[in-house]
Amino acid sequence: MNSIRPNVRAMAGYTPGEQLNDPDIIKLNTNENPYPPSPRVFEAIRSALTGDKLRKYPQPFGDTFRRTAAQVLGVDPDGILIGNGSDDVLTILTRTFVPEGGLIASPTPSYILYRSLAEIQGAKFETVPFSGDWQLPSPWPVRGAHLTFLPNPNSPSGTALRSDEVERLAADIGGPLVLDEAYADFAEWNGLSLVKRVKNLIVTRSFSKYYSLAGIRFGFVAADPAIIRELNKVKDSYNCDVLSLAAATAAIADQEYYSDLRAKIVATRGRLTVALTELGFTVTPSQANFVWCRRSDVPVKPIYEQLKARKILFRYMAYAGYGDGLRISVGTPAEVEKLLAELRKIV
Amino acid sequence: MNSIRPNVRAMAGYTPGEQLNDPDIIKLNTNENPYPPSPRVFEAIRSALTGDKLRKYPQPFGDTFRRTAAQVLGVDPDGILIGNGSDDVLTILTRTFVPEGGLIASPTPSYILYRSLAEIQGAKFETVPFSGDWQLPSPWPVRGAHLTFLPNPNSPSGTALRSDEVERLAADIGGPLVLDEAYADFAEWNGLSLVKRVKNLIVTRSFSKYYSLAGIRFGFVAADPAIIRELNKVKDSYNCDVLSLAAATAAIADQEYYSDLRAKIVATRGRLTVALTELGFTVTPSQANFVWCRRSDVPVKPIYEQLKARKILFRYMAYAGYGDGLRISVGTPAEVEKLLAELRKIV
Repeated sequence: MNSIRPNVRAMAGYTPGEQLNDPDIIKLNTNENPYPPSPRVFEAIRSALTGDKLRKYPQPFGDTFRRTAAQVLGVDPDGILIGNGSDDVLTILTRTFVPEGGLIASPTPSYILYRSLAEIQGAKFETVPFSGDWQLPSPWPVRGAHLTFLPNPNSPSGTALRSDEVERLAADIGGPLVLDEAYADFAEWNGLSLVKRVKNLIVTRSFSKYYSLAGIRFGFVAADPAIIRELNKVKDSYNCDVLSLAAATAAIADQEYYSDLRAKIVATRGRLTVALTELGFTVTPSQANFVWCRRSDVPVKPIYEQLKARKILFRYMAYAGYGDGLRISVGTPAEVEKLLAELRKIV
Repeated sequence: MNSIRPNVRAMAGYTPGEQLNDPDIIKLNTNENPYPPSPRVFEAIRSALTGDKLRKYPQPFGDTFRRTAAQVLGVDPDGILIGNGSDDVLTILTRTFVPEGGLIASPTPSYILYRSLAEIQGAKFETVPFSGDWQLPSPWPVRGAHLTFLPNPNSPSGTALRSDEVERLAADIGGPLVLDEAYADFAEWNGLSLVKRVKNLIVTRSFSKYYSLAGIRFGFVAADPAIIRELNKVKDSYNCDVLSLAAATAAIADQEYYSDLRAKIVATRGRLTVALTELGFTVTPSQANFVWCRRSDVPVKPIYEQLKARKILFRYMAYAGYGDGLRISVGTPAEVEKLLAELRKIV
């Protein structure tokens, strides 16, 4: 239909990682947690099935979740916005800050969804290359962006900027800086404690990785309450459903369970890094639940293709002006062993 | 923060109907279904809790739901877009068709969310008054709208335009016409069969009313596949979670259960209409799961306030240039009896 907006008509659309139905596939392509969510999550969902919770509208602002999360994380409940996944939260931020024809900035290589968000909004998109050791230039070279996205840890690299570097960047940029912390629960530090002091810093979180709840779609923003008030106008009234709110609340309250998972994933990540290095890959030290590895001697795309044919799936990623590599999610020890066994046969 | 978009900063935000926690309240204010969803919905959710469905990303386009809905409703599966509630769907439509500074039109009095959608998008909003008997002018007086919203049945009136009237309006408007059918499952006809022939007609559906699933947030669009392809670029990649997809699929497959509920609701609506008329209200004949009633002799706001104090909640609504009235959801027979008993005491 001709009345589609030109920016939408022109765009290709974001392509999410493949979701194959084959249960035999070892799926290391979308950074899902290889372990199940907390047993308390299942209990919480089951108990939300009693009474009349399904037939009634959920809490529009997720008050129970916000109170629980605020207590666990030590932040202001009025400084939390709930979202239908981190994607919803990034969309709400874009619509709140970026006019049509506006400007969004992010580093590259990084999360490719940011470009799609700019395209949907009809905004310009400018990228700043990471240096070879995954640092960012100082001063930050983009002036006047309506929104700047900084994933920390970054994907595909798994690297994280330090707290003082983020703070300097926020001061330098001046405008709203979104610290996309989808993977921060696996990292050495996170930006939640900066939010009170650094007023233009907006932290976003996902429940798809650390909390092992990619299926239920939940994420949140932590920011100055004055920003949250504006974001609340832009979100859909009931953007989170009663079951995902129950699940997310139970999950965030069970830190003990998840810190055990984290320890397992970090240990496996270490073994994977060592083994890939032994196989001749250059592996970037990761603070996330995936590793980024490259080769200078042979092309990596055939490796991706051969392992996919053997039902082991990870991501092949290529970035203009940078090159390509493989992003491999940290699976269970058994999954990683199978991956390494197949890799040993072909490299 | 000064970098908030001016259109967002200026807006008040949509205020959804009150969600009070008091279990003693008779809640007739947000048109929820008074009966529970199908038992198959509960089974479907419980069985989605097994295996690794929570930890993995859901189907991005809801293929299982689309196949099932297409079969039940007799539409093309490629002509269906899934949404996180009807609100998500209306947001996606707005972002696909309406540029900043564009124009959205709708009749009035009608669903007030449309104005909020225009405000968030930074678009102009123009309304066309319904006539006293809830008809629309022909020709439609707004030219060049990027999107026109027509709720059918309408809220607050509960009235519906006929099929030939909708078709004439679509031809007259020329641009995309969204037939918001949140309540169409309670009506005498619906627009699904028009979609194949009327290329600019876009039908939206909610699972919050007929399917008694306001808590899980699910809705969909039925439109020409060429339109759906563009909408799919604008929606979040995983906008529906694995549990709501399971619930919605089970619900739409159980038409027998829901047509029983429908019969009960239509019968209660009839009794409520008669009783309110006997009490001196002017009640608009409704094709939805609520009734709209007014009085010319006494103000209705005190009636709303007195019944709220007695823990019976419905909506008092006032529209500029039209006047005010009460919108009362059709509850169970027992709820409606209590409402009528209290009303008899005060009017």
